[in-house]
Amino acid sequence: MLEDILKQVAAGKLSPEDAQQQLATFENLGFAKVDHHRKKRQGFPEVIFGEGKEASHIIDISRAMLSKGDNVFITRMEKGKADAVMSALPAFQYDEISKTLFMKNKAFEQKFNDYIAIVCAGTSDLPVAEEAAKTAEACGVEVRRFYDVGVAGIHRLFAHIDEIREATVSVVIAGMEGALPSVVGGLVSHPIIAVPTSVGYGANFNGLSALLTMLNSCASGISVVNIDNGFGGGYNAVLIHQIANRST
Amino acid sequence: MLEDILKQVAAGKLSPEDAQQQLATFENLGFAKVDHHRKKRQGFPEVIFGEGKEASHIIDISRAMLSKGDNVFITRMEKGKADAVMSALPAFQYDEISKTLFMKNKAFEQKFNDYIAIVCAGTSDLPVAEEAAKTAEACGVEVRRFYDVGVAGIHRLFAHIDEIREATVSVVIAGMEGALPSVVGGLVSHPIIAVPTSVGYGANFNGLSALLTMLNSCASGISVVNIDNGFGGGYNAVLIHQIANRST
Amino acid sequence: MLEDILKQVAAGKLSPEDAQQQLATFENLGFAKVDHHRKKRQGFPEVIFGEGKEASHIIDISRAMLSKGDNVFITRMEKGKADAVMSALPAFQYDEISKTLFMKNKAFEQKFNDYIAIVCAGTSDLPVAEEAAKTAEACGVEVRRFYDVGVAGIHRLFAHIDEIREATVSVVIAGMEGALPSVVGGLVSHPIIAVPTSVGYGANFNGLSALLTMLNSCASGISVVNIDNGFGGGYNAVLIHQIANRST
Amino acid sequence: MLEDILKQVAAGKLSPEDAQQQLATFENLGFAKVDHHRKKRQGFPEVIFGEGKEASHIIDISRAMLSKGDNVFITRMEKGKADAVMSALPAFQYDEISKTLFMKNKAFEQKFNDYIAIVCAGTSDLPVAEEAAKTAEACGVEVRRFYDVGVAGIHRLFAHIDEIREATVSVVIAGMEGALPSVVGGLVSHPIIAVPTSVGYGANFNGLSALLTMLNSCASGISVVNIDNGFGGGYNAVLIHQIANRST
Amino acid sequence: MLEDILKQVAAGKLSPEDAQQQLATFENLGFAKVDHHRKKRQGFPEVIFGEGKEASHIIDISRAMLSKGDNVFITRMEKGKADAVMSALPAFQYDEISKTLFMKNKAFEQKFNDYIAIVCAGTSDLPVAEEAAKTAEACGVEVRRFYDVGVAGIHRLFAHIDEIREATVSVVIAGMEGALPSVVGGLVSHPIIAVPTSVGYGANFNGLSALLTMLNSCASGISVVNIDNGFGGGYNAVLIHQIANRST
Amino acid sequence: MLEDILKQVAAGKLSPEDAQQQLATFENLGFAKVDHHRKKRQGFPEVIFGEGKEASHIIDISRAMLSKGDNVFITRMEKGKADAVMSALPAFQYDEISKTLFMKNKAFEQKFNDYIAIVCAGTSDLPVAEEAAKTAEACGVEVRRFYDVGVAGIHRLFAHIDEIREATVSVVIAGMEGALPSVVGGLVSHPIIAVPTSVGYGANFNGLSALLTMLNSCASGISVVNIDNGFGGGYNAVLIHQIANRST
Amino acid sequence: MLEDILKQVAAGKLSPEDAQQQLATFENLGFAKVDHHRKKRQGFPEVIFGEGKEASHIIDISRAMLSKGDNVFITRMEKGKADAVMSALPAFQYDEISKTLFMKNKAFEQKFNDYIAIVCAGTSDLPVAEEAAKTAEACGVEVRRFYDVGVAGIHRLFAHIDEIREATVSVVIAGMEGALPSVVGGLVSHPIIAVPTSVGYGANFNGLSALLTMLNSCASGISVVNIDNGFGGGYNAVLIHQIANRST
Amino acid sequence: MLEDILKQVAAGKLSPEDAQQQLATFENLGFAKVDHHRKKRQGFPEVIFGEGKEASHIIDISRAMLSKGDNVFITRMEKGKADAVMSALPAFQYDEISKTLFMKNKAFEQKFNDYIAIVCAGTSDLPVAEEAAKTAEACGVEVRRFYDVGVAGIHRLFAHIDEIREATVSVVIAGMEGALPSVVGGLVSHPIIAVPTSVGYGANFNGLSALLTMLNSCASGISVVNIDNGFGGGYNAVLIHQIANRST
Repeated sequence: MLEDILKQVAAGKLSPEDAQQQLATFENLGFAKVDHHRKKRQGFPEVIFGEGKEASHIIDISRAMLSKGDNVFITRMEKGKADAVMSALPAFQYDEISKTLFMKNKAFEQKFNDYIAIVCAGTSDLPVAEEAAKTAEACGVEVRRFYDVGVAGIHRLFAHIDEIREATVSVVIAGMEGALPSVVGGLVSHPIIAVPTSVGYGANFNGLSALLTMLNSCASGISVVNIDNGFGGGYNAVLIHQIANRST
Repeated sequence: MLEDILKQVAAGKLSPEDAQQQLATFENLGFAKVDHHRKKRQGFPEVIFGEGKEASHIIDISRAMLSKGDNVFITRMEKGKADAVMSALPAFQYDEISKTLFMKNKAFEQKFNDYIAIVCAGTSDLPVAEEAAKTAEACGVEVRRFYDVGVAGIHRLFAHIDEIREATVSVVIAGMEGALPSVVGGLVSHPIIAVPTSVGYGANFNGLSALLTMLNSCASGISVVNIDNGFGGGYNAVLIHQIANRST
Repeated sequence: MLEDILKQVAAGKLSPEDAQQQLATFENLGFAKVDHHRKKRQGFPEVIFGEGKEASHIIDISRAMLSKGDNVFITRMEKGKADAVMSALPAFQYDEISKTLFMKNKAFEQKFNDYIAIVCAGTSDLPVAEEAAKTAEACGVEVRRFYDVGVAGIHRLFAHIDEIREATVSVVIAGMEGALPSVVGGLVSHPIIAVPTSVGYGANFNGLSALLTMLNSCASGISVVNIDNGFGGGYNAVLIHQIANRST
Repeated sequence: MLEDILKQVAAGKLSPEDAQQQLATFENLGFAKVDHHRKKRQGFPEVIFGEGKEASHIIDISRAMLSKGDNVFITRMEKGKADAVMSALPAFQYDEISKTLFMKNKAFEQKFNDYIAIVCAGTSDLPVAEEAAKTAEACGVEVRRFYDVGVAGIHRLFAHIDEIREATVSVVIAGMEGALPSVVGGLVSHPIIAVPTSVGYGANFNGLSALLTMLNSCASGISVVNIDNGFGGGYNAVLIHQIANRST
Repeated sequence: MLEDILKQVAAGKLSPEDAQQQLATFENLGFAKVDHHRKKRQGFPEVIFGEGKEASHIIDISRAMLSKGDNVFITRMEKGKADAVMSALPAFQYDEISKTLFMKNKAFEQKFNDYIAIVCAGTSDLPVAEEAAKTAEACGVEVRRFYDVGVAGIHRLFAHIDEIREATVSVVIAGMEGALPSVVGGLVSHPIIAVPTSVGYGANFNGLSALLTMLNSCASGISVVNIDNGFGGGYNAVLIHQIANRST
Repeated sequence: MLEDILKQVAAGKLSPEDAQQQLATFENLGFAKVDHHRKKRQGFPEVIFGEGKEASHIIDISRAMLSKGDNVFITRMEKGKADAVMSALPAFQYDEISKTLFMKNKAFEQKFNDYIAIVCAGTSDLPVAEEAAKTAEACGVEVRRFYDVGVAGIHRLFAHIDEIREATVSVVIAGMEGALPSVVGGLVSHPIIAVPTSVGYGANFNGLSALLTMLNSCASGISVVNIDNGFGGGYNAVLIHQIANRST
Repeated sequence: MLEDILKQVAAGKLSPEDAQQQLATFENLGFAKVDHHRKKRQGFPEVIFGEGKEASHIIDISRAMLSKGDNVFITRMEKGKADAVMSALPAFQYDEISKTLFMKNKAFEQKFNDYIAIVCAGTSDLPVAEEAAKTAEACGVEVRRFYDVGVAGIHRLFAHIDEIREATVSVVIAGMEGALPSVVGGLVSHPIIAVPTSVGYGANFNGLSALLTMLNSCASGISVVNIDNGFGGGYNAVLIHQIANRST
Repeated sequence: MLEDILKQVAAGKLSPEDAQQQLATFENLGFAKVDHHRKKRQGFPEVIFGEGKEASHIIDISRAMLSKGDNVFITRMEKGKADAVMSALPAFQYDEISKTLFMKNKAFEQKFNDYIAIVCAGTSDLPVAEEAAKTAEACGVEVRRFYDVGVAGIHRLFAHIDEIREATVSVVIAGMEGALPSVVGGLVSHPIIAVPTSVGYGANFNGLSALLTMLNSCASGISVVNIDNGFGGGYNAVLIHQIANRST
């Protein structure tokens, strides 16, 4: 693009002043290039992190996004705030467990043949697991849920291990001692995104215990996101899933 | 015993002075009672924590104990120091992996029909596991070793799970993420003593990761001792084992 | 059992298809074996961890368990939630201090000759101590309570030490500096389950101080469960107690 | 496979005893399935974690692996120990910066069209970056190195950003404040594996600072492995890379 | 006393049974001796730690103590709870800043010629400082208050340093960076009890910052109590003060 | 001044008693000198840290300051408390985002040609950023705000980098991973005051993550204030700004 | 003194210039007063903290002190460095356990009728205990040692409790769980200086465990110094001891 | 510059291809602008962080810098490594206390009328203080040293306070409790850069104590750099100093 502009200047078709202005904007040159990657993450909805933002603010941002026809996905929305947003924008759908809002304005661009596994240790970790699941679904990716398969009753995990193995990537969520990703990591050959949760008590230290467990896993193929970051777990999984499907 | 002494005084068989002296000693009254429990832990060898003690000091303590005919067990003995002790007291036997010394001076008093399981995640945890095993063996208890059965290759654990289940109690040793006790705890019905080890790197923080994992285990029936405390793991297991066998 | 099935197949008494189905279920083979241990922990009630679960959810789970005739024990139940459960299932009995619910639907299977000691440092630790006590009682085990015997007034502990010594196992609960298990551990010969509590202030750091104290105890025979985990303390004690009584 | 065996038994071609034995081994049934995933991670060399293992032990393990014709990759090998191994097994090649040994016994099975980017903040982080790079190369994956592109001189990063963007996945290594993954994460659309290093001083706390930075990154698409875990970074990247290339 | 009892038994003046009973009670022998020290701390009121105790419970304890004619001092009493106690026991006097209750039922036994200095960094630390002051006053000790003399305006401290120096002992209270005890410790020659407070924000970590500062003080003669433990500060000071005045 | 007094004494114009009294006050001698520096920080308003102070107390302090004709600036004022203060002193102006009150009673003494840059990573950090900005403005210093320029979208920062470079000093505010000061520090040549915020979740640990990041920055020219300490950031910047302008 | 100087000026006996000079020096006025307290701590030797100082430097400082006839006490002296100092200053006496040097150049000024108790949990804590003891002895104070009386064998403590009670003040040293001060604090009525040691392993965290235990003690009358700070323990005890003896 | 290039293209003096190439390099356009700030920090020497770099590597970097005629300053150089560098480049001068190397190849560009104060608590902090001092001197800035003026003997600080006040900016270095910056901050009106050191023992935690103290300082005008980061302290001070002198 720089080449084009320079040629036009050389050809007298573009004054140096106009060229300079074009080169100074993001759309044309330099740092604009920096912004191009956003395009590549197509298929993704626009995402709003709802925590700490007021309902009116979220409505404004949503409207701006909706005006471009994007799908919009909002995380960390307590019910009251979600209701306020939906009274203004009734096309949003609220999921109470994951505390997410989603509005689908256009069809998903990509079709995938396979799915992401969301594996979850205990019922208390469900909100985080569902945040991961809804994130993936908001990108048009199929997820399969394997819940309540914690290591203290490991036969439940084995009952589903074949189906987990067939996934492209697993998001494994666990609180308390956080051992589930290690066990799953020893049983599957695809990448695992581990999500520690703050579920637990006493020396759990708000998820620190599970976080350290996952970082120290002796199984290979596990990487970790922040405590309770279900969105991060789902998002990373979709990124990998997209790459895996890019040639289809 | 107080009753006897008082009756003798009343009967004029014991002067008040002699009575007072008797009551003043540990062997007869008052706090002496405090010391009686030591007797009950029969079958246990005298134990010396070798770390930080000089060889000459250990030799002196050992001699005092040996003079009473006790078995003597010494932990945390680096090879050099152990050699020094053995050159003076050649009846000691040194185990290089567990870094323990043992001298058997009398037969074990108690016979047990069953055994303790020592379950260990990785080969690097072996010194701690062996410290636990040698501790139990120094009390005359049979141990069965299940090593290298970490959660990242869980089929190895399952290959031995029936034999582990038949034990009275398990000592489960793990470093890195420390998830093994949780998995074992979900598979057996006897008590588990969990021993975190400082094996690992990075955010392992010298065993803190494994320690927190074990304290936060979602499996019931697990209690924890200090990091790398193989002796504590073995000792607690023997205590439970003895109770289990007390009516035989 | 696998042997039986194979012989029947060889004898033509069982079609390969039926054999496969039998082998595929948990009740018959393979991982099903994994589930058998649950049976062994007989005498235990079904346990529900009430914290973070809604009353309606707890009622559903309870009903499922009650339908099998089991005793049911629920921990971490705030009064309001307990009332809601009891209005649906009035046979539950609520204990306000330990915040536990218990429903006894069948007689305890086992008779024990001896008891568990629950030893507690201060009156503020009482809720945790009672959670331990109620857990043991819900398993049909006799407990004896030794409360307010903290180390700062050690004569109170000595007044009861003989009775504590006669127990099979002690659960020792302490907050603040958490020194009580060390002192008791020096006076008794049976195993001690130490439970740190979050009682304290300032540099107590929500029980971390007591937890570290107990892990670092210089007395042998002490193992530790999570902060405020009265249930874990009681449960581990019952496990040991059962083993001790298994031959009776 | 179970089906086949049962049919043979029914047909009298296999005795129940032989069937039982086959079913009992890992290769044939049940947990053996657990071991099958190892096959899927083809293209990977056998990996030995060298730290804490003695040279003679490593030689033994290596020989066992080499006997099967596998490629072998060993991490965390100080020069002295590496020399000892190479004097016995001279076909190993040592890389002094990454402290890895590699022996290639067969051609890589898979051909890839694209590459992994290894992005590294400072020259002091080089050993960790090279451990990641060598890990990937030992799997037959092309890596491109972008070193010394820390955020304090961000123009150096921008000079290479287009080439980084074209990679399938990036491994981003940083010590000190660990900010590089956040910046790269804002510029590329593929997954990022972040590796904190213990490089730094003062309040770096052996890599804790960089670890927390990466876990808290406000950029999406970043997951984290343990401190200084270059192998984990490279390994996770290869897993993703393989999925991305599986249809070719 | 043991001697007396034994002589009476020998003289037939006391039956062995009665002697045994006397010896068995705390008031007479053995561990009773343990309880004697309480007597020595005369001049001290009975102290109740009010936090976490219900008003009705406090009323009961207070009544028991008052029946013996003791002075009673209660700490950590929120206004509502204090009002409830005072409506039952109107002779209590409440101090709103220190949140203490005091009831004086008898004159202080000891007269002192000198005073304790309570030195306090900022106005926000006042509740802790006043808890220390009221504790000392409840023991009949004169205190002099030197408030708002933090190190950031050190001339205010110097204006009073002579009067601080004349005290027997100083209690120095500080939050935030907690530097005041170090400065005072360099200016006076008597012992200093340092009390860190949780006043501050950000990296204060609930008083940890001030606690570490005080423990690491480069001035000699400083010892530290728990965070926000004004009572402990005052109590330790009174103990020293009493010793200093014991010959008067 | 001491010289003057002594000369007057020598000349008999001042009695030794009066001289002593004069020398004893802060205004005249000795430590009074200590207080002189306050004068030098002219241009600064009187500052009140509002947190933890009651409205009535703040009104009293404000009135005392206002009586001297000073400008008054109050931080950490929740809306309710601010309203209470303003109902008594309606000349105060409240800023809801920064939670500050300001009353301007006299013109700013100094004119500056240049400005301070307030650079802020995310919209959630705005309250801290505005506390910094309002602090500077209350000193009569021009600030320019560069908000929402976090490192995950670094082109937004570059769009403004020239204007940031022209500032005398920058205050850079960031939560979550806290990487912004490192990036800015690599792009500008003036001093940077970095302010970590507690914005974030999970392993953010109330700002600890951002704090450590900033302390470990590999960019030179960055110094750090306490977590969420917007006032400290602004105040330090004004101090530097004043020095930079002192010769004008 | 200021009064005197002013009167002399008024009387013409002192010129204003000379007066000013006198007032300007530390020896005469103003801050000099600050230095006077050193005088009050008479009976104390000059103390040098030897750690991190070179032998030659220590020799120089010692010579300066010795020239004034003071007693000199040096802590933290490894044997090699002590030998170097003693070869230059042979009058020093080295104590190998406490690693202290002492040279007595004049008689102790004060005679005391009573003693300080040094109470120590385990033999490994001995170096810290002896540092405390030697510190007190270098001030001319009698100490009585009660070693190896840890809480795990509490009858040993009781055997000496009467003699401990008669002390003016106790220094109680403990590592590992650090429970000893709490127990002693419940048995004596004088002040206790608690010294945590770094003795222990695993979750001891270099003395943090013992430190927190002591800060959280539920016994009154305990204050704490830094980890391993035997000097601080002894020094604080002597300060209290001196006050207690000041009227003799 | 972009303008110039475009005009030349328009004028036909520069082909589009050459223009593109020029624009593509750092020296000419775009991100090159990013590099321009380096120019502004004139007067600064080239700085090399020596820790972790080999002597030969340092020699190479130094030669490259020297070839441009720059002054070169190297930090964290142990004596042995410094000697190796100096044997190749004898014009370097080594300072043993600060462990820095400096080579002056050209005169300092700027003359300053005033100085920076380096204020240091204890003699053990000297290496850090001297690193700060040498950093400033390598930029041609005068420093005045005020050493051994810790808060435990505060009169020593006051003896020099006037001279400290006259500095443009102070670097205040302290270990142990780190209180010195707070005290100095209450006495001077210029900015303070606080440098915590790792000097101390026990609960100092390698400088964490001093770091937290400084971050929590109740004095205004203090900002903090990393533990032991003398270079950072000096560098920040010079940045401020340069701004203060820019109009001269």
